[in-house]
Amino acid sequence: MRDPVATDFQTWASACAVRVEAALERWLPASGVAPARLHEAMRYAVLGGGKRVRPLLVHAAGGLTGAAPEALDRAACAVELIHAYSLVHDDMPCMDDDVLRRGKPTVHVVYGEALAMLVGDALQALAFEILAGTIDSLEGAVAARMVADLARAAGSLGMAGGQAIDLASVGLPLSRTELESMHRLKTGALLAASVRLGARCGDPRAFETVQPELERFAQTIGLAFQVVDDVLDVESDSVTLGKTAGKDSQHNKPTYVSLMGLAQARALALNLHEQAHRCLAPLGPSALRLAGLTDRIVHRSS
Amino acid sequence: MRDPVATDFQTWASACAVRVEAALERWLPASGVAPARLHEAMRYAVLGGGKRVRPLLVHAAGGLTGAAPEALDRAACAVELIHAYSLVHDDMPCMDDDVLRRGKPTVHVVYGEALAMLVGDALQALAFEILAGTIDSLEGAVAARMVADLARAAGSLGMAGGQAIDLASVGLPLSRTELESMHRLKTGALLAASVRLGARCGDPRAFETVQPELERFAQTIGLAFQVVDDVLDVESDSVTLGKTAGKDSQHNKPTYVSLMGLAQARALALNLHEQAHRCLAPLGPSALRLAGLTDRIVHRSS
Repeated sequence: MRDPVATDFQTWASACAVRVEAALERWLPASGVAPARLHEAMRYAVLGGGKRVRPLLVHAAGGLTGAAPEALDRAACAVELIHAYSLVHDDMPCMDDDVLRRGKPTVHVVYGEALAMLVGDALQALAFEILAGTIDSLEGAVAARMVADLARAAGSLGMAGGQAIDLASVGLPLSRTELESMHRLKTGALLAASVRLGARCGDPRAFETVQPELERFAQTIGLAFQVVDDVLDVESDSVTLGKTAGKDSQHNKPTYVSLMGLAQARALALNLHEQAHRCLAPLGPSALRLAGLTDRIVHRSS
Repeated sequence: MRDPVATDFQTWASACAVRVEAALERWLPASGVAPARLHEAMRYAVLGGGKRVRPLLVHAAGGLTGAAPEALDRAACAVELIHAYSLVHDDMPCMDDDVLRRGKPTVHVVYGEALAMLVGDALQALAFEILAGTIDSLEGAVAARMVADLARAAGSLGMAGGQAIDLASVGLPLSRTELESMHRLKTGALLAASVRLGARCGDPRAFETVQPELERFAQTIGLAFQVVDDVLDVESDSVTLGKTAGKDSQHNKPTYVSLMGLAQARALALNLHEQAHRCLAPLGPSALRLAGLTDRIVHRSS
């Protein structure tokens, strides 16, 4: 017999991914709208691919505070657009110089470097425009606070800062603490923001109540995500990943695998998986979707 | 005898520029804060240069609605950071490939292309973080609306969109209408947002009252700014401009000068100057600072 909780989760996650895709589709300007080639490239960068981990985290966290779906759609799209822009810029020749992403040629390969840069720039702006639009369904102050949260997570003290540390540490022997603090910014900040934004879309008092556990959960799941990423970069192939496998060691980048070996990195992922579940336990059944996502993040194959 | 209105304007503009510089200095993370090289490069890109036209427009427009200086500081810094990020990305080899800006080597020349891209990305995020912080002194809904305004002006239907059209039109014979609609996005949208944001920082009813004239003023001054830019690119030298002169014709870019000749472009600038003043006339003495900025924008030498 199938596990009914797991089946419920799969049903919810599939429906939620469809909902997110529709919202992204709706908020990205149509390909026919001028400047048409920019809009076409923005849609190419965002639609029809990606695991949508961050939007799912937004919606799952919203379940903890009884959030309205309209506000969650906006927050979910905003974090996904920030993520998508960072991939476009990251893949460019002056950064990782990658040609494959989500199983397709990267944006700069198809549209050229100059337009790829503008695609990233415009996606970032669109993320904030969509997020600010939560004033339609939330208190203005909440909407503004969400913008500040996301901006901080995306900026020099978050994702962009993590990428700068990543750049600077190629070929350097990082300690585990240094590696962790790089990833806390590079990947962790946006994952944590996803969870925080989702919960902020609901009842403010409920948000206050769940915030401490949620923050610890977000930090843990962010780290778990990265450790699994490092393991997959070694274990998997490019077709399964949808992006170039073995890239980290090729580029001489410090990873959890290079730091502690494959077996230890795998064990660390499982340990973080358990820790994440422990953070969720006090939150009761409303955290089941976050729990399902935790399993998915650790046991994914791409 | 010196014109007392002009003297007043100069005094105000100088004091305001100092105030803006101090606010930028304060909100940009210090060079010592990790990741230090990214923060150093962000400060290099923003501080100690630039005419600060947009921040001055923000503060001047705030005078129309009795806006509080704290909110104006945030809005002024936000538009300037968006402008600064766009220059960093614009100067990169895959775009205009320029080595001189504000009289200094461009960011990618000093810090490398990868970091320059991250500088731009992080400055954009910081702009929205600072702007969202207006909830400290304004209604939450106003803060959120300002974020939406700025995001739209910066994105694919604003500045980034204008740059995409610019990219696509190198070497093409544009009509005056096409040239105008390109510049309305590329330069006009952010200048218009500056004026709108400044006015939004004050009394909401006063904002409603002045909005129609202000929008027409903003469109006109945006166009005037660009026509003067095109004239200066031909007439001036790199030392005076602080950026490479003669770049447009070198890159075979359509400009007002290439379209209508130097004398006609100069005449158009003067005509727009007059139009802008006519938009301000009904707003009375509270618009004197905007009038002074209009003169400065049209009669500048760099």
